[in-house]
Amino acid sequence: MTNPLSPQALDLSEAVVGGNAGAYCYELGRRLQPIVRSLTGPGVRQTLEILQAELPDLTAHSVESGSRAFDWTVPDEWTIRDAYIETAAGERIVDFRDNPLHVVGYSEPVDTWLDLSDLQQYLYSRPDMPEAIPYVTSYYRRRWGFCLRDAQRRDLAPGKYRVVIDSSLAPGQLDYGELILPGRSRDEVFLSTYICHPNMANNELSGPVVTTALARWLMSQDDRHYTYRIVFVPETIGSLVYLSRNLDILRSRVVAGFNVTCIGDERTYSFLPSRAGDTVSDRVARHVLQHLAPDHRRYTWLDRGSDERQYCAPGIDLPIATIMRSKYGEYPEYHTSMDDFGPVVTADGLGGGFRAVQRAIAILERDCVPQVTCLGEPQLGKRDLYPDLSCRGSAGQVRGMMNMISYCDGTRSLLQIAELIDEPFEMLFDLLQPLIEARLIRILGWDVASGSE
Amino acid sequence: MTNPLSPQALDLSEAVVGGNAGAYCYELGRRLQPIVRSLTGPGVRQTLEILQAELPDLTAHSVESGSRAFDWTVPDEWTIRDAYIETAAGERIVDFRDNPLHVVGYSEPVDTWLDLSDLQQYLYSRPDMPEAIPYVTSYYRRRWGFCLRDAQRRDLAPGKYRVVIDSSLAPGQLDYGELILPGRSRDEVFLSTYICHPNMANNELSGPVVTTALARWLMSQDDRHYTYRIVFVPETIGSLVYLSRNLDILRSRVVAGFNVTCIGDERTYSFLPSRAGDTVSDRVARHVLQHLAPDHRRYTWLDRGSDERQYCAPGIDLPIATIMRSKYGEYPEYHTSMDDFGPVVTADGLGGGFRAVQRAIAILERDCVPQVTCLGEPQLGKRDLYPDLSCRGSAGQVRGMMNMISYCDGTRSLLQIAELIDEPFEMLFDLLQPLIEARLIRILGWDVASGSE
Amino acid sequence: MTNPLSPQALDLSEAVVGGNAGAYCYELGRRLQPIVRSLTGPGVRQTLEILQAELPDLTAHSVESGSRAFDWTVPDEWTIRDAYIETAAGERIVDFRDNPLHVVGYSEPVDTWLDLSDLQQYLYSRPDMPEAIPYVTSYYRRRWGFCLRDAQRRDLAPGKYRVVIDSSLAPGQLDYGELILPGRSRDEVFLSTYICHPNMANNELSGPVVTTALARWLMSQDDRHYTYRIVFVPETIGSLVYLSRNLDILRSRVVAGFNVTCIGDERTYSFLPSRAGDTVSDRVARHVLQHLAPDHRRYTWLDRGSDERQYCAPGIDLPIATIMRSKYGEYPEYHTSMDDFGPVVTADGLGGGFRAVQRAIAILERDCVPQVTCLGEPQLGKRDLYPDLSCRGSAGQVRGMMNMISYCDGTRSLLQIAELIDEPFEMLFDLLQPLIEARLIRILGWDVASGSE
Repeated sequence: MTNPLSPQALDLSEAVVGGNAGAYCYELGRRLQPIVRSLTGPGVRQTLEILQAELPDLTAHSVESGSRAFDWTVPDEWTIRDAYIETAAGERIVDFRDNPLHVVGYSEPVDTWLDLSDLQQYLYSRPDMPEAIPYVTSYYRRRWGFCLRDAQRRDLAPGKYRVVIDSSLAPGQLDYGELILPGRSRDEVFLSTYICHPNMANNELSGPVVTTALARWLMSQDDRHYTYRIVFVPETIGSLVYLSRNLDILRSRVVAGFNVTCIGDERTYSFLPSRAGDTVSDRVARHVLQHLAPDHRRYTWLDRGSDERQYCAPGIDLPIATIMRSKYGEYPEYHTSMDDFGPVVTADGLGGGFRAVQRAIAILERDCVPQVTCLGEPQLGKRDLYPDLSCRGSAGQVRGMMNMISYCDGTRSLLQIAELIDEPFEMLFDLLQPLIEARLIRILGWDVASGSE
Repeated sequence: MTNPLSPQALDLSEAVVGGNAGAYCYELGRRLQPIVRSLTGPGVRQTLEILQAELPDLTAHSVESGSRAFDWTVPDEWTIRDAYIETAAGERIVDFRDNPLHVVGYSEPVDTWLDLSDLQQYLYSRPDMPEAIPYVTSYYRRRWGFCLRDAQRRDLAPGKYRVVIDSSLAPGQLDYGELILPGRSRDEVFLSTYICHPNMANNELSGPVVTTALARWLMSQDDRHYTYRIVFVPETIGSLVYLSRNLDILRSRVVAGFNVTCIGDERTYSFLPSRAGDTVSDRVARHVLQHLAPDHRRYTWLDRGSDERQYCAPGIDLPIATIMRSKYGEYPEYHTSMDDFGPVVTADGLGGGFRAVQRAIAILERDCVPQVTCLGEPQLGKRDLYPDLSCRGSAGQVRGMMNMISYCDGTRSLLQIAELIDEPFEMLFDLLQPLIEARLIRILGWDVASGSE
Repeated sequence: MTNPLSPQALDLSEAVVGGNAGAYCYELGRRLQPIVRSLTGPGVRQTLEILQAELPDLTAHSVESGSRAFDWTVPDEWTIRDAYIETAAGERIVDFRDNPLHVVGYSEPVDTWLDLSDLQQYLYSRPDMPEAIPYVTSYYRRRWGFCLRDAQRRDLAPGKYRVVIDSSLAPGQLDYGELILPGRSRDEVFLSTYICHPNMANNELSGPVVTTALARWLMSQDDRHYTYRIVFVPETIGSLVYLSRNLDILRSRVVAGFNVTCIGDERTYSFLPSRAGDTVSDRVARHVLQHLAPDHRRYTWLDRGSDERQYCAPGIDLPIATIMRSKYGEYPEYHTSMDDFGPVVTADGLGGGFRAVQRAIAILERDCVPQVTCLGEPQLGKRDLYPDLSCRGSAGQVRGMMNMISYCDGTRSLLQIAELIDEPFEMLFDLLQPLIEARLIRILGWDVASGSE
């Protein structure tokens, strides 16, 4: 029943990830960007290999095409080798090698000549964003298609075009990565992120790179209280596969967790709650964002759209909340080639996202139920914890400490007290230490999230 | 455990009331208008006879004058044959035959000559509405009086006037009508309306005519789940008499109900809650009005003024809420001769009121507790229930369905889900049907209002 | 089970305090003002002697210096005989005899010559209020100092000054007063006020004088339901001493109570809740102020600063709320010589404070659980309790009575009903009496605060 991560033991610096978490995430994201990812296929495996170099204990898992995951079936594996549109003059005017977004994800193979008028039904563009290549997939119905800038599409000359997609859709496997970082407790904090989108920066790569940095930070902590379960999965089918294979253990052990997505730009912070809305994950995330970014955006469960749809589904009901920067669907570059490093995702943006989730995890590790050991207010003056001269103004200096003490009644956790008096958890945690040392406060229980003090 | 009114069985059309409920109500109201109604007397019986022609199973009941009803006593029966004010020249300047409002309700007989100055204390008019004849009654204290336009009153020449009221107040009876429409369940939905006011249109006739249309609609439904208990009573003393004679059965069987009054104009919709405020009747009524007329007026229990005062009194506590158009006391023509068909009450106004209560009843019949049958989100795509091409915009099309499914966890009724996601119950009920057919949703219980699933 | 203070027995007049409570308080305050009070010492004893002349049953208690009170120790007793600053020319430019605020409370003795530059560190003034002498104390660390007008301080000529403080700090005692007014019940209402500040009017003297007036009013009531425990203590250490010596009895008997402080000016009314925030004391105080002064200021527990810090501390948790006029720390003259009778504290201000607490106590004595004895609404007309002529407007006259009756269901206290329908408790209590006489209402229980009906 000791402090699982004492304030000394819990190192919130970013030294463990090379001195600056944002720069680390940015560099890793740039390395992952060229890989041609989809729901399945060699791109997912290449991505996991790069992550394993960062996280040696990350294990790769796979399930065969056709495997069931609740109501779903793992689709055939998709391999894409080449894809282009060529003019009669032999010029490749749309080429998958320039940008993997040019081909509709999961396109079946094709090699044919089409008149422009016939070709149009296979083309996808965004008239409202004429310079952006849109991101389109068709995982569960066979079709093919090309995505291109609308400006280019409008300039296509009438005539014949050759369309080539050299892909295969065949039984294979779905891959995902899993990292378990054991703590003193079997109770788990769960982090999930996805690795199934091509090169987009905020809505894809920010998730795995910030999660990798968080994992490296957690690995560097000697004295974790919770066990951390961290997964890199293809979205939806990957989380369903993972859930269906680990449901009992997840339901019995996971006490908190976060879905890590869209966490790399600088424009805002966002919060999306679990289905229940009031789990410890929700409360911790709200508290962190309230003090880190009071003007952050709060979404509701009705705005959901990522793997919380599975993790919080009826009968599964894991306590998974989401801390984001600009949420999917809510920024103009979303699901286009313009969601890129540099203009959208930055080292500062990624670093801010990293620190938000890190603070949430630190609160989970540090929350406790404090109780004042004396009746009446403690006399801080005789212990040099209180200004001894009663004059106008000085009383304000210890207002936060006295407010905290006044609620240390053994019925509230420090996070609940921080919520009540509207002060940052971290400040109260620091104020608590000298009071514990002075034996004015005792800790009735750590491990508040687990409910097993 | 089957759907009490399957979507096929529950016919919400207005064919059953002649194709247009509003027109039906308007015509019936015009036929009832000339009858000289009061708390008791031949007018109430004539009214019930006309209603029995529409509702053959409506039974007329009576209790004797002097009967006790809780703290009240049924007053003597009042019969009014003639009432007028005549000038010395023999001109009838105020004549009950022109408008029954001209005589104060329950006036005792009189035949005398009075100077204008002496007459004034027996006259009632509305200086603020000089062209309106006010509605005044004195049921429990013997007096007599005339009501007239204030414009006319101001023009009365000094001199003698003959006042004649040919009425009798004598032991007789109090009449009311009761219609029981049995359903598969003994649990009851209770509708009450009153038939004790003279010819006013919104505050009187709209109530019984809309209730009659609702009863005809319910009679046409083969497969009612609930039993419907529908009463036409004089206000206050009539509801007290009905309660005192049926209290045990009402308290043990009534699971929901509505007081039907002031439901015929087009100016607004209004809601007045039960005393408890959160019964299923309140929740259904709020939901219907929120979607039918988002700008409707919400009153509180402190604004009450009709028979909910009895039905929700301490120790009685029936779950009775009130859906209105313009509430009694809240529109300028209230309790005057200007509350008339045409200027105030219209076919469209009556039809809107009919449909509001009809929708409330349909929700009571159809509410259920749905539960998704699979873990994780169901895959709607493979069942052609979901767009299979993931591109911007298409996800929005099934947002309502996915939101509903996400809350089908077996702990909430469909009405609660509709409230949570702020969508109309009817839309969700329709979305639910293909999911039930696809066996993605099962119904844990119907009969939510009764609490006996 | 009888009304503890029947409406006849509870006399809310101010005759008992000489016809005008405000004038009584003002005169008593002026008499107490010249006494040199501090946390301990002869001034406290002189104050108690004057109060004993008003409250013959008030008993003086003392505890020795060095006694423990929870985490605190009673300090040495401080006696101050003289204190001044003298120029080289022998002129006393700052003299404790002019105003006791001139010497820092608990100053140790000194008699020395200092250069002005060396003297400055021992001087306290308020540059923002150049004409005010600030109030400074140093109870728990030995130091000495003088307080003076900043205007005077700026005019001090360079040179030598003699500073003399003829004080002693030696083992002695801490004094407090206690008055028990027995009622029929052993359950107690607790009033606490403090007597440790020098001559300031709102933040000190208003408290003991209003408390004395309240005690005299309570003494005059023959038939108190509750026992009243009223204490006059030095702030903080005095309340801690009192708590530590009476904790079991206080925790088992006190059902409500108020800390009486800062209750003498006319600028506003204020409310500061108990730590729990929803005790009967809080609810009563909020109700009184809502109707007495709808624009009063509502503070939170985080704004606390007086003895509620001890009475509501974790593990003590007495139900003590605070009704004030201008709260400590919130008015410009606070803790300066300008907090004086006349400009700040007035007879009207004191009288208003007296009446607010008096009304709160009267609600505690009179609250009850009423239940209507009949089903349905009672017929008030036949008992001459209701206008018998139904016409526009008259219904409004009894709206309050009917609203009250509609909630007299035996589950709510009269105070809860007053809160629900937003009417003053006193009005409802008066409306209730004829209904009880008419046997339309019975009282299920008095003694609502105690929870032992």
